[in-house]
Amino acid sequence: MKHMLIAQSGGPSAAINATVAGVVERCMISDKVDRIYGAINGIKGVINGHYIDLTDILASPEQLDLLCHTPSAALGSCRLKLNNADESQLKEIVDALLARDIGYFVYIGGNDSMDTVDKLSAYISKHNIKDLYVMGAPKTIDNDLPETDHCPGFGSAAKYIAATFTELVKDCEVYDIPAVTIVEIMGRNAGWLTAASALSRENGGSGPQLIYLCERAFDTERFIEDVKSCLSHKNAVVVAVSEGVKNTDGSYLSESKGRGVDVFGHAALSGTAKVLESLVKEKIGCKVRSIELNLMQRCAAHLASANDLSESKMLGMTAADRAINGVSGQMAVVLRKHNDPYRVAYSTADISLVANYEKKVPEEWINEAGNDVTEEMMEYLRPLVRGEVYPATQAGIPIHLNLYTEGK
Amino acid sequence: MKHMLIAQSGGPSAAINATVAGVVERCMISDKVDRIYGAINGIKGVINGHYIDLTDILASPEQLDLLCHTPSAALGSCRLKLNNADESQLKEIVDALLARDIGYFVYIGGNDSMDTVDKLSAYISKHNIKDLYVMGAPKTIDNDLPETDHCPGFGSAAKYIAATFTELVKDCEVYDIPAVTIVEIMGRNAGWLTAASALSRENGGSGPQLIYLCERAFDTERFIEDVKSCLSHKNAVVVAVSEGVKNTDGSYLSESKGRGVDVFGHAALSGTAKVLESLVKEKIGCKVRSIELNLMQRCAAHLASANDLSESKMLGMTAADRAINGVSGQMAVVLRKHNDPYRVAYSTADISLVANYEKKVPEEWINEAGNDVTEEMMEYLRPLVRGEVYPATQAGIPIHLNLYTEGK
Repeated sequence: MKHMLIAQSGGPSAAINATVAGVVERCMISDKVDRIYGAINGIKGVINGHYIDLTDILASPEQLDLLCHTPSAALGSCRLKLNNADESQLKEIVDALLARDIGYFVYIGGNDSMDTVDKLSAYISKHNIKDLYVMGAPKTIDNDLPETDHCPGFGSAAKYIAATFTELVKDCEVYDIPAVTIVEIMGRNAGWLTAASALSRENGGSGPQLIYLCERAFDTERFIEDVKSCLSHKNAVVVAVSEGVKNTDGSYLSESKGRGVDVFGHAALSGTAKVLESLVKEKIGCKVRSIELNLMQRCAAHLASANDLSESKMLGMTAADRAINGVSGQMAVVLRKHNDPYRVAYSTADISLVANYEKKVPEEWINEAGNDVTEEMMEYLRPLVRGEVYPATQAGIPIHLNLYTEGK
Repeated sequence: MKHMLIAQSGGPSAAINATVAGVVERCMISDKVDRIYGAINGIKGVINGHYIDLTDILASPEQLDLLCHTPSAALGSCRLKLNNADESQLKEIVDALLARDIGYFVYIGGNDSMDTVDKLSAYISKHNIKDLYVMGAPKTIDNDLPETDHCPGFGSAAKYIAATFTELVKDCEVYDIPAVTIVEIMGRNAGWLTAASALSRENGGSGPQLIYLCERAFDTERFIEDVKSCLSHKNAVVVAVSEGVKNTDGSYLSESKGRGVDVFGHAALSGTAKVLESLVKEKIGCKVRSIELNLMQRCAAHLASANDLSESKMLGMTAADRAINGVSGQMAVVLRKHNDPYRVAYSTADISLVANYEKKVPEEWINEAGNDVTEEMMEYLRPLVRGEVYPATQAGIPIHLNLYTEGK
């Protein structure tokens, strides 16, 4: 019998460990899987053989439940982009897998990780390697993977943002003087998370008055007019803005900060809200504050969406199921069969349709003025944040699972 | 019969509305109170007569429960410092109260609000005004009011900080490369909230490696040495720092930013973590990120401490009880009778002992190196964050109470 190997990659989320739990559960009921391993720090751990044996550690409902409620990648992560120049790195990975009798490999991650799955499965196919099946499982709070209705981790981050906005808005509304609060939300090229701030209005909350997604070119003059217009009838104006909003010339609003680029050549962004704070101070002169939801929005396991955690686990089960049944080069996807009542199905999509594509917010889900979202967007978002989780605590503090310590 | 008036002041918290609920409950069981009013925007609403009648709105367990779980001051707030030059403003307030048949006034707030209670009760006493009793109820996430063991709102903010650190640390630990994360926590002159980050280690979490409170002079060279020392045996180094840390010459570390002062003449701070981020970048050169917990730490009702909410309510009940029984010029306090098991009692303290004093962290509760807290501090903190709350949600989004709309 062959072994299963699981690895995680890219930015962490509150739901990525539920996908590991799903893979483990599917393997536990299979008679084709011997041991279940986790590679530490993604593909780096695959290459250097830094594995831990999860088979016994996770062979209990309590441990699996604790894993599901532990934020961030329990197996660690990496940001290693594969070398495209030749096949030597792919050969190194495949040889490492074969040397350890790995028959099934599930890689959990976002766009870059799916690129790795794509290249790896193409290499396996090209070289006619038998008994090694590689599957992708989606993970990205940015919700920008195609083929799947939405991505694990997104619903929990969206719920954090929606709940946090209900609270922030209450905080901002206590004084009776004009004040603008600008909240910056993650999203380099896709505004899904920023859109989720609109959910804070659902139960009568006044929510953000203005929402700017990175899909629409950002006009600073129009922004100042929008804020002034809101201030004419409301003291506490709250603005939600994607970190990745761009000027009409395509440059990032925050680019002037000169923060450089990450290892993938993406512009490393920060400070969009700070730029807007300065702008409001200069052009309007009222009290103004900027807030970054920063890492909290992607690791708030205490406020995860129950729907998201369930689906994340099911997608891990789906990916593992296909690998065990001899499928390779696909990513597990969730399909929305019906919106209200919410009904989903699980399937897979060819990895080549997923890798390196970014699913952006459709133009028609942003209002004409470019400062809010439409009802279609709300219908899409609503089911994804539903369901409360009550993770284990001891003496008032969350309990998390710790799978390894080396390298932290 | 006379009426009860309640007002809230200063920065909001997740527990300040539980104190209103406590005042209301104590009035509901009294035969000496006619109507229960709330003044909107603190003492400003008292002066201009902007009242709402809470008697019927809150005459239901469900509404009171919803009020307890609604973050930020439900009656609004203000930052009006009383004019010290003459008695005209005090006369204006007292005349306004008497004109509306207010017999009992509970003012909920921090240091500056207790100064208002102090002046007001002194004026009433000096002018021999009958049948008007003014009491203070403590509120400050900063936990810096004297005479009371701790302050309502602190436990919830501390719980948010502790839980958030458990999650942030997990997030920071996913990569196997050296990285420093600096988390800035509220606290201008008192480091209680920053100390609460240490609670994140309680259930096996690795927590922040370094904790700097504003009570101890901050030495940037020592800080860099501390960080380097941590990096020598751990990749992911997380630092907790009070926004108000000061250089050895007494100037705020963030003062170079020139952010000016607020209406009370306090330096308006921000950016301490940013200053340290730049310092690490320059002196060490590894990956570094700064995070501000910003307003989220004071309004996270979804993560409030059950102990804190209960005590906040009891303190409102205590303040109302004394006012109804003809006491004036006192602040309700909570006293710790026993630490383990945790047992408390409620009493009052003379307002003159409270107003304008700041209770700082005792020197001996900070470790010798000035980069962590002691076990005594942990014993003090532990009970305050205990107990989970599960506030009402609808379709995955929190439900909050909205008592008024004007002026927001």
